[in-house]
Amino acid sequence: MEERVQELKNRLVEIGDLKYAASVLTWDQRTYMPPEGAESRARQVALLQRLAHEKFIDPRVGRLLEDLRSHEESLPYDSDTASLIRVTRRDYQREMKVPADFKAEFDEHMARSYHQWTLARPEDDFGRMVPILEKTLEYSRQYADYFPEKDHIIDPLVSISDEGVTGADLVQLFGELRENLVPMVQAIASQPGPDDSCLYQHFPREKQLAFGLEMAERFGYDLDRGREDLSAHPVTSAFSLSDVRITTRVKEKNLKEALFGTLHEAGHAIYTQNIPSELESTPIGLGATAGVHESQSRFWENLVGRSRPFWEFAYPRLQDIFPDQLRDVPLETFYRAINSVEPSVIRTAADEVTYSLHCAMRFELEMDLLEGRVEVAELPEVWHERSLEYLGVAPEENRDGVLQDMNWYSDRIGGLYQHYTLGNVMSAMWYEAALEAHPEIPDEAAEGQFDTLRRWLTENIHTHGRKFTIPELVERVTGGELTTELYLRYLDTKYSTLYDL
Amino acid sequence: MEERVQELKNRLVEIGDLKYAASVLTWDQRTYMPPEGAESRARQVALLQRLAHEKFIDPRVGRLLEDLRSHEESLPYDSDTASLIRVTRRDYQREMKVPADFKAEFDEHMARSYHQWTLARPEDDFGRMVPILEKTLEYSRQYADYFPEKDHIIDPLVSISDEGVTGADLVQLFGELRENLVPMVQAIASQPGPDDSCLYQHFPREKQLAFGLEMAERFGYDLDRGREDLSAHPVTSAFSLSDVRITTRVKEKNLKEALFGTLHEAGHAIYTQNIPSELESTPIGLGATAGVHESQSRFWENLVGRSRPFWEFAYPRLQDIFPDQLRDVPLETFYRAINSVEPSVIRTAADEVTYSLHCAMRFELEMDLLEGRVEVAELPEVWHERSLEYLGVAPEENRDGVLQDMNWYSDRIGGLYQHYTLGNVMSAMWYEAALEAHPEIPDEAAEGQFDTLRRWLTENIHTHGRKFTIPELVERVTGGELTTELYLRYLDTKYSTLYDL
Repeated sequence: MEERVQELKNRLVEIGDLKYAASVLTWDQRTYMPPEGAESRARQVALLQRLAHEKFIDPRVGRLLEDLRSHEESLPYDSDTASLIRVTRRDYQREMKVPADFKAEFDEHMARSYHQWTLARPEDDFGRMVPILEKTLEYSRQYADYFPEKDHIIDPLVSISDEGVTGADLVQLFGELRENLVPMVQAIASQPGPDDSCLYQHFPREKQLAFGLEMAERFGYDLDRGREDLSAHPVTSAFSLSDVRITTRVKEKNLKEALFGTLHEAGHAIYTQNIPSELESTPIGLGATAGVHESQSRFWENLVGRSRPFWEFAYPRLQDIFPDQLRDVPLETFYRAINSVEPSVIRTAADEVTYSLHCAMRFELEMDLLEGRVEVAELPEVWHERSLEYLGVAPEENRDGVLQDMNWYSDRIGGLYQHYTLGNVMSAMWYEAALEAHPEIPDEAAEGQFDTLRRWLTENIHTHGRKFTIPELVERVTGGELTTELYLRYLDTKYSTLYDL
Repeated sequence: MEERVQELKNRLVEIGDLKYAASVLTWDQRTYMPPEGAESRARQVALLQRLAHEKFIDPRVGRLLEDLRSHEESLPYDSDTASLIRVTRRDYQREMKVPADFKAEFDEHMARSYHQWTLARPEDDFGRMVPILEKTLEYSRQYADYFPEKDHIIDPLVSISDEGVTGADLVQLFGELRENLVPMVQAIASQPGPDDSCLYQHFPREKQLAFGLEMAERFGYDLDRGREDLSAHPVTSAFSLSDVRITTRVKEKNLKEALFGTLHEAGHAIYTQNIPSELESTPIGLGATAGVHESQSRFWENLVGRSRPFWEFAYPRLQDIFPDQLRDVPLETFYRAINSVEPSVIRTAADEVTYSLHCAMRFELEMDLLEGRVEVAELPEVWHERSLEYLGVAPEENRDGVLQDMNWYSDRIGGLYQHYTLGNVMSAMWYEAALEAHPEIPDEAAEGQFDTLRRWLTENIHTHGRKFTIPELVERVTGGELTTELYLRYLDTKYSTLYDL
């Protein structure tokens, strides 16, 4: 059996390494590639991905997984080997259910769709996208149909990103958030906002980058196994567990952009850097799910990075770096500025309180589209209505509405927005559990010490790689089930104080 | 037949793209990779190379090449398709003659050897390398043995890099160079050297880089399809014909290092950028041979980059960039400084006149080792003697002698040094032919115009990619055979004037 485990592992490591190689090529495309390199690069990335896929769906992999069934059952559920076999089998079965031809056709459609979107958005031309998005919807439904055991059409689409969470779970979760957050946003909107002009002075690029990276390192981002570069959209890329890089973008007139972007991406990177090296390049040598990944990035960006204890430590340092800009701005003013809540139509610019409402709206539209309650052509109108209902504001143009995010235009419809919110919800659950184990964490943060916290996350989350589904992981870490309660309580406590509610 | 040509081409493009992907990973390793990424990266690069190799030695490739034999013969020799089939068959036959096991063993030995060399060189410990180098020699002989049709043991080793050139050719070529250059060096050494102190002032890094790249662009290096980064050793890497990058290193106290390094690498890059895109990712979508590549890099670095016409144009520009350093240095002083000849023990620091003597010495040692006239353990002594004989100087330590270059420690023995000299020799042949066609080239250079020259190189050399062997290409371009005459005449004319010989 050991021999077969080894053969399986060898095959999987090759596949993982092909994917890592594709990631290097993609990262390079985002950071340094000269403009004319794009066409050949696309062909090369597609080749590496295809080879990885072909090697994975090799019948020999299926046979090994079958042969190893009883071996797996003889091992502890959470052992490396049992988990490797279990998770690989799950992935394998998913791949085998979807015919290769369909997958290729859908991939090609998505590439075309993305290209059309890059043209349609600047022209605010949703009409052009309607037939394309209708086709995407059709493909997405077809995909779900390959999983006849599902309870809801969205389930197979969600589980691509967030294994173990169902449509029913999400309906409940987003419902609870909406019920609580819509009134909270309304209450906040009726209060005078803080003066956040201190964030919109001139902050030279190099100093912004240096400060952000210094804080990321303090959180635990290891620069011997990572680095930061510039790209149009911030992203974290892993090329192994010992080479995990982040990118950011800088606006010299906006201190928040690079800083919180860097802390966010560093959260993703710290997660990957702390997955045990024995799991490298295998299907369990990754973060658990997209939502769990967001629970790490949002953890460091928001629960730590926008917290008062952190800034008690960090603000004097920031003032040293930008004395002309911040010398006369008190900590309290700065703290309120970085936590100002302002409903806007743009998701990626949203604050902690409104962010989940953007996602709720999009998740619910995915459900409506998949179930046929909303037609693609009606999206602009429905988008407008819901936006007003949830956020109190609505986009004037489709480019800031239904054309805003590339998600549906470069991927399926269904399962593309829950992970941001799952991340928020879980981050609060983790923080509560960490505080229970180590009540000294906020005091340490105020001293610029994050080792206890980072180590707790590693021991409780990072170390498991992708062994567990979301419910399994939540149960392990908290002893309970996924709940919005702690996240809502966190927001309520923080923003009631800030906004005198 | 068209179908089989297409199948062959599709297979070859996949192989080419796997190699390009490996190049991206290697480039990244040299430029941006964080230190701890090395171990996984080595595994990933090895995987991509192995997959490329496996796909190439697939029996189906051999069958297609057989099936296409008569089709090839029906097409003009220099047509894309006939050349593709011919060159691919040559490569295929070479690969098939060397057993895969032997190749893997040799590769592994070379990786170990390189690692040992990185430890031995700083410690000046040649003793440690003796058994390793003996093994390398044994492998190199064994490799040659797989080619029983050879005239000389070194032939198969040379033709890995420089197809069409034999050991006998090289014995003659290096003999002619040695006979003429040793007395020339002696004559020069007896003259007072120029004052080159102007080159060793403080030149800020960014300005050096900007000037070098500006000149490279002027020569024809297209930055929409290339870029420059920093690395420990300057190198050119291609990831397609539309993404060809160079690296350089800067010494702020030495103006020559980055400048001539950049012009050299730009020469390699201009070559690759001008190979027709239809040949991309195929075995003929590359430079012809290592020597022909050097004929391009040395062309722009030396024949143009160290010429008086070029500096008539470029020097005022350089003075503008470094006014404090160069305002009071006349063009003539600068021109003599960049062309100073000083025999030294380090090959990579050598000037135009002595460079070929370094290579002659190494090529002759390769012959002596392969033929058993010199034992590995005797190398330090023989190195010392020959260095004194050829250059008039000898290294005091092995680290500046037999341990100086990584070549033999990371690759075979045999065929590792001729390409530098072939490049010098051919560059002079090309220049003569270009001048004959376009006598206006030096006048244009003095105006900063290099289009005529670059276009001539493209039409006569670049456009053929890897269709031709060295003798074929030389015949096409010059109508004659490879000869040292023009190179020796070029050196004699230039340095007789400079040194008043």
